[in-house]
Amino acid sequence: QLKSISDFNKNLQQAGFADESAFISARLPQSEREALQKMSQQLEADLATLKARDTENQSALQAINAQQVSTRPAEEHQQQLLDITQSLKETRQQIGAMQQRIVDIARVSGMRVWGPNCTGLVNTRETIFTPFMRLPNVDLEAISGNVAILAQSGMLAAGFMLQVIFSGFFKVSKSCAIGNKADIGESEVLEYLAADDATQVVLAYLESIPDGRRFLEAARSVLATKPLIVLKGGRSEAAAQAAVSHTASLAGADNVIDGALRQLGVFRAADFMQMMQLGKAFSLNPGRFEPATSGGNRVALITVSGGAGVVALDLMQDAGLKPATLSAPAIERLQGIFPSWMPPGNPIDIWPAIEKVGVEKAFSESIITALEDEDVDGVLLLPFSSRANAVFPAELIGEASQRLRKPVVSWVFGDIRFLDEYRQNLESQRVPVYDDLRTCIEAMSAYLTYARGAAR
Amino acid sequence: QLKSISDFNKNLQQAGFADESAFISARLPQSEREALQKMSQQLEADLATLKARDTENQSALQAINAQQVSTRPAEEHQQQLLDITQSLKETRQQIGAMQQRIVDIARVSGMRVWGPNCTGLVNTRETIFTPFMRLPNVDLEAISGNVAILAQSGMLAAGFMLQVIFSGFFKVSKSCAIGNKADIGESEVLEYLAADDATQVVLAYLESIPDGRRFLEAARSVLATKPLIVLKGGRSEAAAQAAVSHTASLAGADNVIDGALRQLGVFRAADFMQMMQLGKAFSLNPGRFEPATSGGNRVALITVSGGAGVVALDLMQDAGLKPATLSAPAIERLQGIFPSWMPPGNPIDIWPAIEKVGVEKAFSESIITALEDEDVDGVLLLPFSSRANAVFPAELIGEASQRLRKPVVSWVFGDIRFLDEYRQNLESQRVPVYDDLRTCIEAMSAYLTYARGAAR
Repeated sequence: QLKSISDFNKNLQQAGFADESAFISARLPQSEREALQKMSQQLEADLATLKARDTENQSALQAINAQQVSTRPAEEHQQQLLDITQSLKETRQQIGAMQQRIVDIARVSGMRVWGPNCTGLVNTRETIFTPFMRLPNVDLEAISGNVAILAQSGMLAAGFMLQVIFSGFFKVSKSCAIGNKADIGESEVLEYLAADDATQVVLAYLESIPDGRRFLEAARSVLATKPLIVLKGGRSEAAAQAAVSHTASLAGADNVIDGALRQLGVFRAADFMQMMQLGKAFSLNPGRFEPATSGGNRVALITVSGGAGVVALDLMQDAGLKPATLSAPAIERLQGIFPSWMPPGNPIDIWPAIEKVGVEKAFSESIITALEDEDVDGVLLLPFSSRANAVFPAELIGEASQRLRKPVVSWVFGDIRFLDEYRQNLESQRVPVYDDLRTCIEAMSAYLTYARGAAR
Repeated sequence: QLKSISDFNKNLQQAGFADESAFISARLPQSEREALQKMSQQLEADLATLKARDTENQSALQAINAQQVSTRPAEEHQQQLLDITQSLKETRQQIGAMQQRIVDIARVSGMRVWGPNCTGLVNTRETIFTPFMRLPNVDLEAISGNVAILAQSGMLAAGFMLQVIFSGFFKVSKSCAIGNKADIGESEVLEYLAADDATQVVLAYLESIPDGRRFLEAARSVLATKPLIVLKGGRSEAAAQAAVSHTASLAGADNVIDGALRQLGVFRAADFMQMMQLGKAFSLNPGRFEPATSGGNRVALITVSGGAGVVALDLMQDAGLKPATLSAPAIERLQGIFPSWMPPGNPIDIWPAIEKVGVEKAFSESIITALEDEDVDGVLLLPFSSRANAVFPAELIGEASQRLRKPVVSWVFGDIRFLDEYRQNLESQRVPVYDDLRTCIEAMSAYLTYARGAAR
């Protein structure tokens, strides 16, 4: 059987919570410890009643027995933790009432409640790891980075964390699984993350947004200084129903919030992997790019394959991007690297230029020309993976992207023996690389959506 | 500089074409060889004219100098090859006229023309590799498999080939880059692949379909015995324009063909990686699944994460799939592995069942129950990656999927140290595994779209 509870206990002990029975922090003042002890006793009485009423309910009881109350020294935005494991079914009224009683007791003693029905909190800088799964043998500080994850789902947030640790897409500042949100909800966590110096990018998976107004204000405060990607489950009717049974939450007016989020500059992710992939893009470039116009969706494509250019244009339309019409000076400058019989356009299909002036010059000239064009807001690179990595002007591309404050995103296809090297070269220059074209173009859209939000 | 032409020559020599100057096969009868020699001389005269007219045109000339005419012993559907490299720009009228003259000459001598503006043909069984890029040091027979790729783009088809060789998504029977289709077009190649014993799955990237009626007939003949995935570039206006300049082709009535393809059971891919991922699914299961109804889009979800279930339902709606309403007997059977306080539904969120009966039994019982339910057409597995691979009932799942002729597709998330093992376990049982949920659900949709096409 699963060892989730003992793993939970070990994780909390490692984070400095000393009291094994109730995880009351040794760092707390005496009066607060006493309040917590009292609360714990009250809960135990409730549990006894529950147990007597339903002896079959082994799984729920096992979970409830593991109730932990923990707290840390008061600080602004420092949440104290209360975590009831995920087996608690909120559909059962007595547990729902108990959940509310916990919140009431905690409020009296000035505490805040986290959860229930989630894996809690990960803070890589202060090496706090509360999920009920074993932390792999990894130094939390080694994975400490600039991306915060907020998830209204315990298993996912924990899964994310493990996937992130080993995938290397990006490094993490905080991972917050907020579960049923008996007390602390998504808006409050966003308000915290907006002010958190360790966090430069916020990824949020949500199932319900009970207070749309507060949520949009919180999103706005995040977006004032850092990008926000939202994956909102419950778009479809079936999913909205499932969300109710999962976290006891109504999905809310999805389409209203959707429109408002886009206005603010939030890109909505389609699934978890895409959210991680977009997280990578923003982790490399947490700041805002500066589109030349407030529209900011005109993209130049540099490709070695006409077919890739064609499909990219279709996907750009899906993602709300427009092919840039290159300015006359840009076209003239490009003509210098193209054979005379080949009039360059957008997509810039540079194979003939490569045959004329070589890989390095063809890419350098075309990319710089496109980035310097005032009619271009961003550049998509679609090269073929080959031995040419050594002469690929990665550093120049990264430097120009930063200097001109315009995003460059690359898809690369072909010989996978050279993909990793290409990726490393470009990503060390803060240019994200994808092996699927759809995500590549969605990343460009996410960059420009964030930039457009700022323009308003 | 690139060595594309010498690579092309080497590749053809390895395939058994002896005459270096014009790649006229030593296996041809004398009369055909003479016809080809004559044609070659005519072309050289044209080239001389062209050269005199445009001495700057170095790149095009280099390409034209490399014109190769090759042919193999006549057989039904055995195409002879003519490949003019991709530098030929069909916008130039004199080259367009020359292209037509090549076709005319070839027709007189009973030959067919392949291309131009493409990388030609790969046949893994007969070890023919014509692309103008170096074949990696790999035994073609070792990558010989059941998936054929048809692509109206030279670089992509070659890139695909290299990506496929090393990615191991699936193995390949034929890779056909048809370029500008001066003579042999997509419909004829599809007709060939429909009858090709080595091919069980067809993936097609197309930019233009000049004869919609013939194309749909060819697609129908493929679908009579094997699945077909189509990625059609040029949905958007910008892409349609780019397609014209890339392969001189009008995109055709995209939406008309789109509707007809779906009716036939063709899933349209969004991009190249997705096409490969769907190719993997069909490579594992080239036959047809049998949905219980002609609607065939009712899916059961088995998940360890409520959040994953919610997002999966949203993505299912995007992909035209419906959550199955489990039958009363199925619900009753599931209740046997769930705690009494937990009424099972769809999504089947099996965490409580795992806590009650363990990983192996929870997954076995829930999957078999779902697959045997007459109200279910397919099952999505959404587990968390963990050490539990050893007890995961992969063999049982694969056996049940084949016995009941219903597709099972899995997404897996979490600890990536265990992902590969999980993937191998399931895929050896012909259950495809994806690390992004969107593609996972699209693969299920592709299976059921193919099955529904058959039902009509």
